[in-house]
Amino acid sequence: MIDVVNLTKKFSLITEFWDPKIIAQLNDYYLKIAKIEGEFVWHSHSETDEMFLVVNGELIIHLRDGQLHLIPGELCVIPKGVEHKPAAMGECQILMVEPAGTLNTGDTGGDRTIEETAWI
Amino acid sequence: MIDVVNLTKKFSLITEFWDPKIIAQLNDYYLKIAKIEGEFVWHSHSETDEMFLVVNGELIIHLRDGQLHLIPGELCVIPKGVEHKPAAMGECQILMVEPAGTLNTGDTGGDRTIEETAWI
Repeated sequence: MIDVVNLTKKFSLITEFWDPKIIAQLNDYYLKIAKIEGEFVWHSHSETDEMFLVVNGELIIHLRDGQLHLIPGELCVIPKGVEHKPAAMGECQILMVEPAGTLNTGDTGGDRTIEETAWI
Repeated sequence: MIDVVNLTKKFSLITEFWDPKIIAQLNDYYLKIAKIEGEFVWHSHSETDEMFLVVNGELIIHLRDGQLHLIPGELCVIPKGVEHKPAAMGECQILMVEPAGTLNTGDTGGDRTIEETAWI
């Protein structure tokens, strides 16, 4: 039978910030969720756009020419190649849609890279 | 500047049931929203999986071997080729992610097909 995925239940299983987990696959794309708080690193994805939907909390996406502020029920698509730095003042829960194999730190890499994103 | 898309505002612009609208593009995929009520037609998509996320209301997806019931904050992915019939007892607001060009009636066609999905 096809799974029904409950976002609240899935978020309750996440214990670390900035540790995205896969909750569903759509063709060669993954739906991922993450809890975030504080600032991430500047990065970009040269091969893909990236969608962020805020489920809870407030998301700030720093861009080189400004900032985006998103509240629950709001989404944006960061075009491929555009440098961005996600951040949140308090805990924020986000849903992302990305091609399988997309790294959280994009082309930037570094010690905050999650090499193998796990299912949850 | 990159658009921030507010789902509530976008849904408020939709006046017809079963009339999906595009709210964002992610590579060659579209994010679409729709208001639905009543029953749709049995159909399947031979080329693509299809994701449904319930934003408001309750979604029933009839399958040949059962039913899925989704409430707000729940999602599912209907695998390609799987026959399904979406339905809702009252008004239901859904977000979908699909490759550009995916028809609402899939391979089935018929008079409920929206040939050109508009942006909203």
